[in-house]
Amino acid sequence: MSAASELSLGGRYLMGPGPSDVHPRVLKAMATPLVGHMDPKFIEIMDGVKEMLRGLFRTKNDLTFAVSATGSAGMETCFVNLLEPGDEAVVCVNGVFGNRMCDNVERCGAKLVRVDAAWGEPIEPAQVKEALGKCKPKLVAIVHAETSTGVLQPLEEISGMVHDAGALFLVDTVTSLGGTDVRVDEWGIDAVYSGTQKCLSCPPGLSPVSFSGRAVKVMEQRKTKVQSWYLDLSMVRKYWEGNKRVYHHTAPVSMIYALYEALRLIFEEGLDERFGRHRRNHELLREGLEEMGFEFLVRPEYRLPMLNAVKIPAGVEDAAVRQQLLERYNIEIGAGLGEFAGKVWRIGLMGCSCTENHVNMLLAALRQIMK
Amino acid sequence: MSAASELSLGGRYLMGPGPSDVHPRVLKAMATPLVGHMDPKFIEIMDGVKEMLRGLFRTKNDLTFAVSATGSAGMETCFVNLLEPGDEAVVCVNGVFGNRMCDNVERCGAKLVRVDAAWGEPIEPAQVKEALGKCKPKLVAIVHAETSTGVLQPLEEISGMVHDAGALFLVDTVTSLGGTDVRVDEWGIDAVYSGTQKCLSCPPGLSPVSFSGRAVKVMEQRKTKVQSWYLDLSMVRKYWEGNKRVYHHTAPVSMIYALYEALRLIFEEGLDERFGRHRRNHELLREGLEEMGFEFLVRPEYRLPMLNAVKIPAGVEDAAVRQQLLERYNIEIGAGLGEFAGKVWRIGLMGCSCTENHVNMLLAALRQIMK
Repeated sequence: MSAASELSLGGRYLMGPGPSDVHPRVLKAMATPLVGHMDPKFIEIMDGVKEMLRGLFRTKNDLTFAVSATGSAGMETCFVNLLEPGDEAVVCVNGVFGNRMCDNVERCGAKLVRVDAAWGEPIEPAQVKEALGKCKPKLVAIVHAETSTGVLQPLEEISGMVHDAGALFLVDTVTSLGGTDVRVDEWGIDAVYSGTQKCLSCPPGLSPVSFSGRAVKVMEQRKTKVQSWYLDLSMVRKYWEGNKRVYHHTAPVSMIYALYEALRLIFEEGLDERFGRHRRNHELLREGLEEMGFEFLVRPEYRLPMLNAVKIPAGVEDAAVRQQLLERYNIEIGAGLGEFAGKVWRIGLMGCSCTENHVNMLLAALRQIMK
Repeated sequence: MSAASELSLGGRYLMGPGPSDVHPRVLKAMATPLVGHMDPKFIEIMDGVKEMLRGLFRTKNDLTFAVSATGSAGMETCFVNLLEPGDEAVVCVNGVFGNRMCDNVERCGAKLVRVDAAWGEPIEPAQVKEALGKCKPKLVAIVHAETSTGVLQPLEEISGMVHDAGALFLVDTVTSLGGTDVRVDEWGIDAVYSGTQKCLSCPPGLSPVSFSGRAVKVMEQRKTKVQSWYLDLSMVRKYWEGNKRVYHHTAPVSMIYALYEALRLIFEEGLDERFGRHRRNHELLREGLEEMGFEFLVRPEYRLPMLNAVKIPAGVEDAAVRQQLLERYNIEIGAGLGEFAGKVWRIGLMGCSCTENHVNMLLAALRQIMK
């Protein structure tokens, strides 16, 4: 067969729901020659990743590492390891990713209890309380940062109710981690997953996760095998933990390099400074968009700084504007998902894509296209 | 927390069971700035990957792409999409990876029929025939290149029997693809998976797969949902196929770049030339090792060129020699797995690690250590 043409890419400004722009040092890390996945030098890198992830999740959890696949596999890892057929699980749904959690629960053969809120609204603690009065779930799952709507979900009050009911608290932080505070221990989170391609500004391909001692105990008391071989933590953790590492699958070495470097950059910047940067640039974007007549989907107090969902104004063609942004300005923004397809844009300000320059470029381009 | 130390790695010669050395052009591809996973430019790269994978698998199968996780997830993808609870499956076992397949079958709730051969020996067609006389399986699974033992499994005769019995033929080509011939259409393979980090000389993180029309029909006629959300091909294929690509999960963009470049290098070299190179360097290694008194585990006619399993001579300390190779010479070779732990070494000659220089370096180092 004839050879495919040369790889000639790049030059985009990634302001959608992820991937975000990646720092040159992380790109360079990806190009580092490989060592073996059982090499003592690689084990050191894994240990560094675990330690820095603990810092980022603000947890002391031993079982903190990165699943060898993207964020959705991190979600699946949490559900398949914690649920067994016949278990009951409450899932809070106010967007695409809550729905995805429901699908996971059902594929585990567990009984699903849904708590629904309108898309664009947070889940109210009273709704969770009501659900907990009617069932005895093994876990309650909720999305901290709904990437499909831009809602930031308050967690502490709900966490208390979940623990009072004797259930585990499972939280999706795919879009929040690295861009706003995530306090696993303080907020009583038992299982948490994230993705690398959002506010960590690392390429997609890994899912950071962390499990409390209570969650680990639940896994250790399972009566059935985890339905996924690849994601079975009873085996995976023997590779990530302990003095003698046991081969399970071949770790994605280069992706772990990239995550290591992305985490170093985060701690060089400092968590508080980083979260402040996300808030400041969100305000800058908000002001500019509101001046142009855009309305945000979400009420101010529940808005995510890194994922800005705005209603597409009447008379503005969704696909045509996004295409011009991409082709003329090399700027990617996100389309609406699910019931918001064609109705909202999702503008990401994540990690390295969260700068004043990004905001200024996008606002100027939008003004030129929409004038 | 204090920042972790700078990433300072590389310099190893990877002559174990994978990962193998990665070509500088592939490392450079990994460092390419990212575009979005729905970007038209990225869809072109995906299409190029599909086309080149078809060339490498020697197939016309539409459903040919790369699963967004390592080879073991490719294995799981095949089993969870093709099997439903209550189905029957025959698995041929002559090493670690056959056993892993059995574990997958059981996690699918399917009935397992094992065909066992001694480790280091191939499966005999007569054994498969006997098994097929006693059951009515939906599929028969076998490993083309057993990475734990170095056995190359002849497939054509067994394939005929499997099809006569009305079953699908599922083959593991993790270690063979890109290093020796894999003829999916000619050999009647219905489902096949591989890994990127062996003879493709691409970093670990993706699993190339291909499915025949018969396999796709079986998937389309399922009565139950696939137990894995992440690996459910009824959704994944809508992202990889068709005119309108539907978001499923965020593709590992940089890994796809790397695979694209690794495949380009393979077709620039040419398949026959590449397979010939693997055979020639295998012979060179064999001569050198036999001169030093090493014995191969596998009979000559069933030996893999890219994975050379040799018995550790009496009086030679397994771990101590491998440690010296790694620390003094920066050469990684593989330890024995499973029942061969401490008894064999597995020397890889895969992709970019398959050169005369690699062979010469290893032989010289072994002579110096063992003199």
